[in-house]
Amino acid sequence: MFDYKLLSALAAVVEQAGFDRAAQALGLSQSAISQRIKLLEARLGQPVLLRASPPQPTEVGRRLLNHVQQVRLLERDLQTQVPGMNASRLPERLRIALNADSLSTWWAPAVAPFCAEYGVVLDHVLEDQAVGLKRMRAGEVAACVCAVERPLAGARSEFLGAMRYRALASPTFIERHLSSGSIEDLLRAPAIVFGPDDQLQHRYLASLGLNGAFSHHLCPSSEGFVRLLQSNLGWGLVPELQVRAELASGALVDVAGGPPIDVPLYWHHWRNGGELLAELTRALGQSARQWLVV
Amino acid sequence: MFDYKLLSALAAVVEQAGFDRAAQALGLSQSAISQRIKLLEARLGQPVLLRASPPQPTEVGRRLLNHVQQVRLLERDLQTQVPGMNASRLPERLRIALNADSLSTWWAPAVAPFCAEYGVVLDHVLEDQAVGLKRMRAGEVAACVCAVERPLAGARSEFLGAMRYRALASPTFIERHLSSGSIEDLLRAPAIVFGPDDQLQHRYLASLGLNGAFSHHLCPSSEGFVRLLQSNLGWGLVPELQVRAELASGALVDVAGGPPIDVPLYWHHWRNGGELLAELTRALGQSARQWLVV
Repeated sequence: MFDYKLLSALAAVVEQAGFDRAAQALGLSQSAISQRIKLLEARLGQPVLLRASPPQPTEVGRRLLNHVQQVRLLERDLQTQVPGMNASRLPERLRIALNADSLSTWWAPAVAPFCAEYGVVLDHVLEDQAVGLKRMRAGEVAACVCAVERPLAGARSEFLGAMRYRALASPTFIERHLSSGSIEDLLRAPAIVFGPDDQLQHRYLASLGLNGAFSHHLCPSSEGFVRLLQSNLGWGLVPELQVRAELASGALVDVAGGPPIDVPLYWHHWRNGGELLAELTRALGQSARQWLVV
Repeated sequence: MFDYKLLSALAAVVEQAGFDRAAQALGLSQSAISQRIKLLEARLGQPVLLRASPPQPTEVGRRLLNHVQQVRLLERDLQTQVPGMNASRLPERLRIALNADSLSTWWAPAVAPFCAEYGVVLDHVLEDQAVGLKRMRAGEVAACVCAVERPLAGARSEFLGAMRYRALASPTFIERHLSSGSIEDLLRAPAIVFGPDDQLQHRYLASLGLNGAFSHHLCPSSEGFVRLLQSNLGWGLVPELQVRAELASGALVDVAGGPPIDVPLYWHHWRNGGELLAELTRALGQSARQWLVV
């Protein structure tokens, strides 16, 4: 069998984003962690980590992490049948990648009953909905919420529902930048874009026949995004779920007649991910549709 | 003089987090970008980028980026005196690192008048308040909001005010996990921690004389953090600014008698950062204290 002391050291360095924190998490010295990684690399004859800050797994490192993630989930099942196998008495952790807008809106109420029932704590890893799968491929997470339907080899995907996005701005912003009646004002007025992977504003403009560069703020925070809108700094696409109160009060209004954009969300999970992940999958399949458009 | 075509290619690869996006941003082919980076490395006799995903600057790459950032700010000043120097007519961008809790609360209203007056758009880069300076040291941002006072060489820091954090939970969570009257329940009840750099929960427990491991969810999203609290998933330290409504309605309440934690915030900016950065510094010095504790 593999030497899981070495693999746990690798997983800790990547999950804790550093050798010193990995050492703390495992209760080892930093040099013990370094030695384990070096031994692993000596056995494999190739590096498992790029010594960047934070350390990045190499291609082979990723495959090993992926394996560790799956073994952990299987161990958990065994523990329920054979209690006492694991010395640690901390509750079970599940590591999940999801988009910031889900974490800011429907995710917590949808998973709360599951976490309370099974005593599970969650490690959330944020990724744009377009690229969340890469965390799963990298073996860093047990499951992910993303907009891509096609599952990875060894995994399944299930449709959860769609988040509905509307192009919104404050009435003050519209008066300052979008009051001429010409739809091309939207290319000149500053937009707000979540990050380099966020194409929603581009898609909205394209749906109105507008193409080309547009000026924009970058704001990689869901709540910051709404704060920028409210402070008259730009227009942008926001989940309806997140701004119900602002829409009702008129603090935010639609910028133009374009239709909303529905972003489908899929739940990706390892097929051999064990009972805990299967339970979470069942729970989400029922609860997510209370908040999402199906 | 340096070859700024090569340096711009390096800056674009790091800022856009990839060769393909850098090519799009500069209107070049991806192979043109690769050639420029290779040429730069050939001239320097050492690598400027680790080819990770996303690409990471090496130590020498960081120094070059730092220089590019400062040259850009100086160019902007020159442009106001010698209009037409720059072919692009897109508005000025400032790249700023700050903590998620600032971006979720006071930042947008504090900078809105400055952005409107100078027609500036902002690139926000999120970093925990304890480590934001590393983005400045890396030359990736023009300024940063962080909890460290000591400025980098060539930069200044100014006290903006403090964010006040309170340890909160929902009444349902307190009834379920913290109703025995024993303060040690706090080590057993799940906490919520923003990320590996977030030590607020540890500090709060230490202030109550509690040390050692505690079970926790990880949630790297300010709004997600509050959603987890509201969904009875854990207790955690939250900026008072962010949950005024929840405190007023009783949806969130203090978990124990411990005092609030005030996290000081400093504004770090390059000393030769140009007029625009100086204006923003002046504006923030006046506006931030409307929201922060001084």
